Amino acid sequence: MSTPATPLLKDELDIVIPTIRNLDFLEMWRPFFQSYHLIIVQDGDPTKKIHVPDGFDYELYNRDDINRILGPKANCISFKDSACRCFGYMVSKKKYIYTIDDDCFVAKDPSGNDINALEQHIRNLLCPSTPYFFNTLYDPFRDGADFVRGYPFSLREGVPTAVSHGLWLNIPDYDAPTQLVKPLERNKRYVDTVLTIPKGTLFPMCGMNLAFDRELIGPAMYFGLMGDGQPIGRYDDMWAGWCTKVICDHLGLGVKTGLPYIYHSKASNPFTNLRKEYKGIFWQEEIIPFFQSAVIPKECTTVQQCYKELATQVKDKLAKIDPYFEKLSDAMVTWIDAWDELNPAETKLANGDAK
Amino acid sequence: MSTPATPLLKDELDIVIPTIRNLDFLEMWRPFFQSYHLIIVQDGDPTKKIHVPDGFDYELYNRDDINRILGPKANCISFKDSACRCFGYMVSKKKYIYTIDDDCFVAKDPSGNDINALEQHIRNLLCPSTPYFFNTLYDPFRDGADFVRGYPFSLREGVPTAVSHGLWLNIPDYDAPTQLVKPLERNKRYVDTVLTIPKGTLFPMCGMNLAFDRELIGPAMYFGLMGDGQPIGRYDDMWAGWCTKVICDHLGLGVKTGLPYIYHSKASNPFTNLRKEYKGIFWQEEIIPFFQSAVIPKECTTVQQCYKELATQVKDKLAKIDPYFEKLSDAMVTWIDAWDELNPAETKLANGDAK
Repeated sequence: MSTPATPLLKDELDIVIPTIRNLDFLEMWRPFFQSYHLIIVQDGDPTKKIHVPDGFDYELYNRDDINRILGPKANCISFKDSACRCFGYMVSKKKYIYTIDDDCFVAKDPSGNDINALEQHIRNLLCPSTPYFFNTLYDPFRDGADFVRGYPFSLREGVPTAVSHGLWLNIPDYDAPTQLVKPLERNKRYVDTVLTIPKGTLFPMCGMNLAFDRELIGPAMYFGLMGDGQPIGRYDDMWAGWCTKVICDHLGLGVKTGLPYIYHSKASNPFTNLRKEYKGIFWQEEIIPFFQSAVIPKECTTVQQCYKELATQVKDKLAKIDPYFEKLSDAMVTWIDAWDELNPAETKLANGDAK
Repeated sequence: MSTPATPLLKDELDIVIPTIRNLDFLEMWRPFFQSYHLIIVQDGDPTKKIHVPDGFDYELYNRDDINRILGPKANCISFKDSACRCFGYMVSKKKYIYTIDDDCFVAKDPSGNDINALEQHIRNLLCPSTPYFFNTLYDPFRDGADFVRGYPFSLREGVPTAVSHGLWLNIPDYDAPTQLVKPLERNKRYVDTVLTIPKGTLFPMCGMNLAFDRELIGPAMYFGLMGDGQPIGRYDDMWAGWCTKVICDHLGLGVKTGLPYIYHSKASNPFTNLRKEYKGIFWQEEIIPFFQSAVIPKECTTVQQCYKELATQVKDKLAKIDPYFEKLSDAMVTWIDAWDELNPAETKLANGDAK
């Protein structure tokens, strides 16, 4: 298939950045980000002043803003954890979101050229996904590729792509035990591909370099309760990924992973990470089978309906692990209520058909 | 994870080559193949003399040999179609098989080095697969890669790998309609990865550059009834791929795709291909949903049992498409009977556990 020219979607995409520090990293992204609108979600002390380089168009929300805008519902937004970024998804009014961590820089492709990560994400989101059958030459919609012999013709139209999950050169996204065991490992392999994660298969979604179609899947991109006052951290994006994938599968939407790469500059502290993660390391052994076997009833045809259904199932089936999951289930419902409050005019009909 | 050094398995692997012509292509493969045993399955006129370059250790079977060895059961082996290659799997006594087409040459990696395809296949087969959860950095067992954050620790042991499906630079493996529409398309993209095809996901398995563990999955690698006297061609490897994947999923075995690449020199005639394929293009629209929903009973714990069960289901559910599928179902049973006859001492217990 031939790749269409990539529109830049300048009026249709917001870049969401969670941060606790000055955003000097934006200098390197200036050629690629400057014409987009930024939504900065300031974590931690709201009296701290975050410096944003000149010339960027942005709005910034700190904890006081979140509390003011959401009122009592603000308790669904994490504090002292980058999970707070999902507040930015909620206040955006754009069709697409790109979210990136502030320790991620522009990577180079094997020819030494700067990678325009955002452009590749847009390309991924605008091309269909193919979740029902695996194409051995990967993304059939890339230039120079296509569906191979034996790929059913009825499936070649594909389905709308809801999520584009990008990767990381240099510091890989490892858990604390792996960081501790392999402190020197760097990801140097540029794998020149994008692929659809098949229907029924879960994946570990990382929030460092992630784009999605907010209209198609936004309300499922809740990053959970992490950080301050919670028994767990570093599972915010994982939680969003499990919920999102199950809902995409149900609604007939696609999830892609692969290109683009960003350059992840600095490993976070493995000891701190271990403290945040260790309950998750136990819990995911039960959470993942839960999501693998979760069935959403046919009657759920919007992301909101699917998400509230998942919230009910979380309470029913995961609360036995820890009371935390009851709280999380309640927060999932609060999140949807807050989303709908801030986005009243939004159509609640997902574009994909339930499969 | 760190990659173990790759043993060459010279006494444990046969190379199976179906052909109708002199095997001059072996000259290019000499540095990589010469120390292995070749099983050449000569298709077409058995009186024709096939030239094999000096210095190769081989056995050659023509149609007369197949008829003599299998007697009436020889009718399960296709004639005038490269599907005949599966006879070579049956007569081999080795643990591993590598099969390659005689129009496939040594490819070069992006640094310009010759790719030792066989070595990469062996590496793929000796490293576990991870079919139950997707790893976003692809094969976690490669040097410089690992399982990413959020990958369940209980799944990191992986499962035995039964199949290694390699790819093709230059002429991609397209169906006749795509060949007709894109006669000039060449695959120039070297995607530096190997990945496990997730459980529950089917893929179009190409027989051009394929390795497998004969002890784990051999009896499922039947290439069906194609060519002379049959209503269809060019679906031999697809058939084997669908059956193999369903059985691997049932038995808890892994299927990998990606590296290594070979250089596929010449596109076959798209008009001839269309004539061979066109029924398959219709039929696959029903066959693939059949395999996607096929359930093998728990009681089936050997590949042979699983395969005969599939044969029964093929007769029950696909014969309505065309009487051909009744004949194919019978041939599937004959194939297993012939396999067991030629391999009487073989343990019938699959190494993987049923999941």
